[in-house]
Amino acid sequence: MPSYTAPVKDMQFVLHDVLDVSKSDIPGYAELESDFTNAVLEEAGKLTSDILAPLNAVGDQEGCRLENGIVYTPTGFKEAFEQVKEGGWTGLDMPEEYGGQNMPYVLGTAVGEMFSGSNQAFTMYQGLTHGAASAILAHGSEEQKNTYLPKMVSCEWTGTMNLTEPHCGTDLGLMRTKAEPQDDGTYKVSGQKIFISAGDHDMSENVIHLVLAKVPGGPEGIKGVSLFIVPKFIVNEDGTPGQRNGVSVGNIEKKMGIHGNSTCVLNYDEATGYLIGDLNKGMRAMFTMMNEARLGVGMQGLAQAEAAYQNAVIYAKERLQGRDVTGTKNPDGPADPLIVHPDIRRSLMDQKSFVEGARAFILWGATLIDQAHRSGDKDADGLISLLTPVIKGFLTDEGYDMTVKAQQVYGGHGYIEEHGMSQFTRDARIAMIYEGANGVQALDLVGRKLAQDGGKHVMAFFDLVKNFCKENGEDEAMADFIGPLKAASKDLQAAGMYFMQNGMKNPNHALSGSNDFMHLFGHVCLGLMWAKMAKAATSALANGTSDAAFYETKLATGRYYMARRLPATGMHLARIQTGADTVMALDAEAF
Amino acid sequence: MPSYTAPVKDMQFVLHDVLDVSKSDIPGYAELESDFTNAVLEEAGKLTSDILAPLNAVGDQEGCRLENGIVYTPTGFKEAFEQVKEGGWTGLDMPEEYGGQNMPYVLGTAVGEMFSGSNQAFTMYQGLTHGAASAILAHGSEEQKNTYLPKMVSCEWTGTMNLTEPHCGTDLGLMRTKAEPQDDGTYKVSGQKIFISAGDHDMSENVIHLVLAKVPGGPEGIKGVSLFIVPKFIVNEDGTPGQRNGVSVGNIEKKMGIHGNSTCVLNYDEATGYLIGDLNKGMRAMFTMMNEARLGVGMQGLAQAEAAYQNAVIYAKERLQGRDVTGTKNPDGPADPLIVHPDIRRSLMDQKSFVEGARAFILWGATLIDQAHRSGDKDADGLISLLTPVIKGFLTDEGYDMTVKAQQVYGGHGYIEEHGMSQFTRDARIAMIYEGANGVQALDLVGRKLAQDGGKHVMAFFDLVKNFCKENGEDEAMADFIGPLKAASKDLQAAGMYFMQNGMKNPNHALSGSNDFMHLFGHVCLGLMWAKMAKAATSALANGTSDAAFYETKLATGRYYMARRLPATGMHLARIQTGADTVMALDAEAF
Repeated sequence: MPSYTAPVKDMQFVLHDVLDVSKSDIPGYAELESDFTNAVLEEAGKLTSDILAPLNAVGDQEGCRLENGIVYTPTGFKEAFEQVKEGGWTGLDMPEEYGGQNMPYVLGTAVGEMFSGSNQAFTMYQGLTHGAASAILAHGSEEQKNTYLPKMVSCEWTGTMNLTEPHCGTDLGLMRTKAEPQDDGTYKVSGQKIFISAGDHDMSENVIHLVLAKVPGGPEGIKGVSLFIVPKFIVNEDGTPGQRNGVSVGNIEKKMGIHGNSTCVLNYDEATGYLIGDLNKGMRAMFTMMNEARLGVGMQGLAQAEAAYQNAVIYAKERLQGRDVTGTKNPDGPADPLIVHPDIRRSLMDQKSFVEGARAFILWGATLIDQAHRSGDKDADGLISLLTPVIKGFLTDEGYDMTVKAQQVYGGHGYIEEHGMSQFTRDARIAMIYEGANGVQALDLVGRKLAQDGGKHVMAFFDLVKNFCKENGEDEAMADFIGPLKAASKDLQAAGMYFMQNGMKNPNHALSGSNDFMHLFGHVCLGLMWAKMAKAATSALANGTSDAAFYETKLATGRYYMARRLPATGMHLARIQTGADTVMALDAEAF
Repeated sequence: MPSYTAPVKDMQFVLHDVLDVSKSDIPGYAELESDFTNAVLEEAGKLTSDILAPLNAVGDQEGCRLENGIVYTPTGFKEAFEQVKEGGWTGLDMPEEYGGQNMPYVLGTAVGEMFSGSNQAFTMYQGLTHGAASAILAHGSEEQKNTYLPKMVSCEWTGTMNLTEPHCGTDLGLMRTKAEPQDDGTYKVSGQKIFISAGDHDMSENVIHLVLAKVPGGPEGIKGVSLFIVPKFIVNEDGTPGQRNGVSVGNIEKKMGIHGNSTCVLNYDEATGYLIGDLNKGMRAMFTMMNEARLGVGMQGLAQAEAAYQNAVIYAKERLQGRDVTGTKNPDGPADPLIVHPDIRRSLMDQKSFVEGARAFILWGATLIDQAHRSGDKDADGLISLLTPVIKGFLTDEGYDMTVKAQQVYGGHGYIEEHGMSQFTRDARIAMIYEGANGVQALDLVGRKLAQDGGKHVMAFFDLVKNFCKENGEDEAMADFIGPLKAASKDLQAAGMYFMQNGMKNPNHALSGSNDFMHLFGHVCLGLMWAKMAKAATSALANGTSDAAFYETKLATGRYYMARRLPATGMHLARIQTGADTVMALDAEAF
């Protein structure tokens, strides 16, 4: 059975040494003093390690079950959910007027990593609720907010997001679910939605479905889609759940992973729905919160990689197999621990340098979201919009690969379910798919975000890198970081240049390189993060920190990333620069 | 439910256009005329598509079960196994004197890909039997061969290989299973073996376990290991299965995949065993057939990738989602098929160019094995020994990645079990682990094979590449292939040079790059294969083939590999050349 230890110290390092959050002028950040965030993270760490992590394997093994129309969650989930609610964790970054604590999103993100890392399937129940509540907060009427938000912030009622139908996922314009307007201003929603995470369950007294549907007679395609609130139980005047609505669970999907989450087929049969936001502006309403939702999924990639890595390290230190070729390290034992072997080290360093770099990237991204929302900073909003597909796509692709590497450390013991390493990979796999498959993220990045606002945001990113390199280029202690970062950034610029020069005559020259560009961009971002972490570590060491070993380890881990991971940028650029010719050469029939 | 179509035409292309097997002077190859191999492959194709493939999902869903000491295989397996036996498929490349057909290994390998691709879990029952029979063939006494081989070649009796124990996998010197010599020349074998594929089941009347164990008082560690035949039922004088032996199934492991195969914990309690080969030379006996066994596992990586790719193509052509940015391709439909999108193309081309390149690599490797065994060619034996860890490690790592890519084409439908795409990844995952985890393959390659016989075999490989480039360097039609192959081969040579110059002072400088070297080598091999395939296709086109589209597709697919996949060699070289410094920088406690 795998364990989970919340990486509080590493989070504190990013929040304070690197991002220096409490000095920021973003409203609410002054509260984020080191002692305060430490207390919150320690408390979340206890809950996730002690309560949620032990339920992770239970959820995987038992899964959810549908009996007589009722969905039952795995043993222990209900009790754990009560503890999470009681601790106030569900409304950490929600407005106080609806019962939340109004903490900055960056702190919610750090806590969120712990929740996801300890038990992703469980955490999705509150994660989906958070997403649905955010949409109501942004687009709901005052009445809707007052009706639903207090209950959703506390997770007494949970929420879902209903987009996908059997024949349409990415291309939502093909949607068939209908919403017929009624005389009383409500709608009758009918149709089938699939892949609905946390679609129904036994842990809350009501489920608030946010459903995309088309009102007959509206515009064709995606422009005729509206967003509706469809509660499982229609809410009475007094705010209590009343009559059962016309929505039922058709099935629970059998999935590769996240078995503890009830992924439902939901059938809507003239269910009463309430329009949220403007008619035919459903996509806009649904996607207002997209940056956060996608950052949250990118965070899942990191979180599973972190959890898998922790267990790989434990195993690599305990399992005795073979001898160190440079000299026995464990002479009293029958063999040396796995961790002496260079190829095991390589794998662990790949994982360690990824998760720590990814965490800095995610938390930096979360500060940009706070800056955009709390300070109304349009540049921050533009930059995080640009970085969002990179965070989602790159971190989930890489995060998945890291869980596979962690599993590999266990050899055959990683393949049997007993040790839980298979679950990390199976759970991590979904993050590459949902909230926009990673191919769609790459398309969004190259086809839309790069050129957004005249390319202003990508230029701002390059300036960030350039200025950092300039400021630290003379610093001898930073030499292992600045050179590689400059080279990687140059590759990224060359790739962007290739798209500009060739994408105009044929967009396929750009789109054929979209996946490589997303990965190239991701590596540059992690390179920048490692350079910033190195800078912080160097400063701490220069200032005579009492914890020199911690900061030296950061520097060594960062050097690994710069030397061993960052050279991937050259490969991605080489692929990009071959354009569409070989990619699009074949007729469809030739496959 | 996924389908499987045997890639007969592609196999025929490799066997005849590329390898020109029937012209080879390897004994038995003259028979391999195109019509003959086509008939065999078509027949195998029918069996695997019609009988084995439909059972693949059944095996995954039902798994095996242990009831009152008896292991039951999934519904339909027993009947299918009868059909496989009746068709004579189990002894295709086994000697005629034991009931086999004495076909070259290369043909057995092509047929084996179909079996594995259609149903890996099922095929392992006969695969393990083949491995055990091969060991008896190589090291058994005449009596042992006569007792066991006829029944094993026909798969009336199946076989297993027992190496792993709970505390030792790679490091078999730690083994605890004991074999006490008895007065009658037999041994009493006691101990526990785990992860025993096809360990027990209801499809054969006897199971012949090959068990590694230590005879008390023998040399320490790996040098004191011997190999024993331990039949489930002790064979009577008349050759029929008699008394039950002291071996029992402790458990069936719950695994990530290959659920249809019964992976057993086997408990030996004074079971009667018969020494096979020399005392204390068990490792040698077990590993005589290692090149074949590892090539067979590499083939599984290819086979799962092929099967997954086929289904990804079907889905990409059928699923309508979004529009081609360069112009609508399906104006009468609500959207264009997925295959119009460049990033889907990229993924499919990655898969297609891998599986076709890998197939050529595997079949070429199989001809080297035939050359070594049938012609007694020591150079061929040395070359295939060098290439074996590349075939096993590179093709299973990449093969797994390709199944993940194929799954991704399905979006959310790839994550639910209904479509079977998850099973391809879960089944493919084991091939990276068993028969020597891929880290061990990389170690074998860099730590042992490179320098074997004074580096003779790696030099022979470089000569192969060099001569091919020389012979075809002037050919305009080959320009897209020769340049990239030369560059990639140069990277491989530079990596080898780095190891020579730095590995002597510190072996960790070499071992830290072992995984990258294995991948670098693998890419050069596939580059060479694609260059050879391009040459064959160019010739066919020049000779006025009636199937120009087929050969043009080969050329286009090869160009994709050279342009898009081969540039990975530069990244691997860059990593290798950073040596051990960043890999080994941290103390174990710092992880």
